[in-house]
Amino acid sequence: MTLTIALDAMGGDHAPQMVVGGADLARERHPELHFLMFGDRARLDALIRSRPELAARTTIEHTAEAVEPAARPSQVLRQGRNTSMRLAIDAVKDGRASAAVSAGNTGALMALAKFVLKTLPGIERPAIASLMPTRRSETVFLDLGANSECDADNLVQFAVMGEVFARAVLGIAKPTVGLLNIGTEDGKGNDTLREAAAALRSSPLAIEFRGFVEGTDLASGKVDVVVTDGFTGNVALKAAEGAVGLYAQFLREAFKSSLLSKLGYLLAKPALQLLRQRLDPRRYNGAMFLGLNGIVVKSHGGTDALGFANAIGVAADLVGQGTNQWITTELNRLEEEALRSTRARAS
Amino acid sequence: MTLTIALDAMGGDHAPQMVVGGADLARERHPELHFLMFGDRARLDALIRSRPELAARTTIEHTAEAVEPAARPSQVLRQGRNTSMRLAIDAVKDGRASAAVSAGNTGALMALAKFVLKTLPGIERPAIASLMPTRRSETVFLDLGANSECDADNLVQFAVMGEVFARAVLGIAKPTVGLLNIGTEDGKGNDTLREAAAALRSSPLAIEFRGFVEGTDLASGKVDVVVTDGFTGNVALKAAEGAVGLYAQFLREAFKSSLLSKLGYLLAKPALQLLRQRLDPRRYNGAMFLGLNGIVVKSHGGTDALGFANAIGVAADLVGQGTNQWITTELNRLEEEALRSTRARAS
Repeated sequence: MTLTIALDAMGGDHAPQMVVGGADLARERHPELHFLMFGDRARLDALIRSRPELAARTTIEHTAEAVEPAARPSQVLRQGRNTSMRLAIDAVKDGRASAAVSAGNTGALMALAKFVLKTLPGIERPAIASLMPTRRSETVFLDLGANSECDADNLVQFAVMGEVFARAVLGIAKPTVGLLNIGTEDGKGNDTLREAAAALRSSPLAIEFRGFVEGTDLASGKVDVVVTDGFTGNVALKAAEGAVGLYAQFLREAFKSSLLSKLGYLLAKPALQLLRQRLDPRRYNGAMFLGLNGIVVKSHGGTDALGFANAIGVAADLVGQGTNQWITTELNRLEEEALRSTRARAS
Repeated sequence: MTLTIALDAMGGDHAPQMVVGGADLARERHPELHFLMFGDRARLDALIRSRPELAARTTIEHTAEAVEPAARPSQVLRQGRNTSMRLAIDAVKDGRASAAVSAGNTGALMALAKFVLKTLPGIERPAIASLMPTRRSETVFLDLGANSECDADNLVQFAVMGEVFARAVLGIAKPTVGLLNIGTEDGKGNDTLREAAAALRSSPLAIEFRGFVEGTDLASGKVDVVVTDGFTGNVALKAAEGAVGLYAQFLREAFKSSLLSKLGYLLAKPALQLLRQRLDPRRYNGAMFLGLNGIVVKSHGGTDALGFANAIGVAADLVGQGTNQWITTELNRLEEEALRSTRARAS
């Protein structure tokens, strides 16, 4: 079965090279993939020419316009109709592609995706979710930057979407959910958090809500889903990435510090490469926009071809597993349960 | 010269054992230290009896009351007059000690410290600051949890305090300052952040303000001082700590995964111990409450004796370097400069 992915070929720090390179790597791993690439035809042709197998599975659609990294979402909504990003999303809306992947301006991508695809019934605002490695396995973390200010209702909806995402992608029957806070005690944090916690506790949604969790719990695996607003989520994700990068650098320096440690490195090298792979940020590249009528995956702006290939892989998995149908079904089920419970209480 | 530090002997997960053990370690490193320990005399006596050198430098003042980890700050303010935490801060106020150290409830410690010691002139709210290791050297990071909601004025004051702290503690002549945000472009974030950035840019304070920085910049060392509200700061700090812990665990597992990697570990062990020391969270234990009329250092609640000894060391350093006189002098200088610049513009 063929699966077509629309690519914003001009988004990201190293586009279009890393987009083409990433598509080529993804094609090796997922033989079912075809690509609809939107961008500068001359540049894309030049890059694809040397890759005959990729060329055979790629359709290029030319546009000279691209979304600037610092462009305001509102401006892109008004004037960005012919940008490579917008056209990739349009292709999902029109049914020409099953998903879109972009490494461009996150705010613009979210604004365009929301405007073109609309949200699923019952969802006010979509959120950006990604998997994070933990001591136990993996945690779903959201929102990673779509909504820099959120109210309690938004956080509750994120909890529902994250819970369903964990069922669908991690295969957990009853995922546990926590709200990110600066302490686990009930009184901690601000009014919005306390209101959201109260709603999740008393909710008929039957979510396994475990109350507040802390920053350290992103790595501890205490809960399967960690929910926060897009500002805090974005900062926490990047702080964790920065810390891992620092540790890796200090480790390299330690290995280089003496002859014995250099020899030790050589002996441990194969094992250390597994470690590197395990925590490689490129492995976790590809954040999903949850809550939209269509699949859009955001790649890190600074990623390389390997990272972009992983983002394409996330899109392919989400389509293959029918995640959005899952979410819609679950949301309907949850809504019916809520309705039933309201009726039961009323009667 | 003798330097007396007041210790809340009952605060922290492993108190009073780790407080006594930490004081004993700190005494070895800082022969000038004397301790005023507040807490349960019977338990403290039993712990100190076997440590004659510590006993010779310690005065125990008995109290049966301690601040509960989950107690509300407002309640502690009203009813906590005889708690070990309050008495330790009172000792600073009364001039019987030069600084207080506690591993107890952060919110209560901040509320008591603010109530008893008051803030420095020109400072509305104190902040919690700590040093973070970076690729280059170290960064001052604040606020780490004193103020979970901040306005633009608060952030500007944190920038001033952090800048002075970096001069005093890191010895940097002209520290650079950044505001933590979800992107570096001017339009990113919320109104509070944009307002604070505008104030810092146009300010006559002559701070080397470098605009917005991201979560990854906590480890990159892009600026010497990273300023944020207490909610974001607390989550980012703990997310980074969690990520480092995860990396360390995966590294241990990698070394154990084969015979060769075990041998490699043995050879590289001395170098790796240096790495561990370099990133040991206990090394960075001891966060200062900036902006108060007196020195109060907060230790991690879960720390051990070594970590608590480091927190005592931070307190000793801050007293030794006359940090608060520094901050007051700098704030006065900055105020005069602001006044002069206002006059110059008016004339």
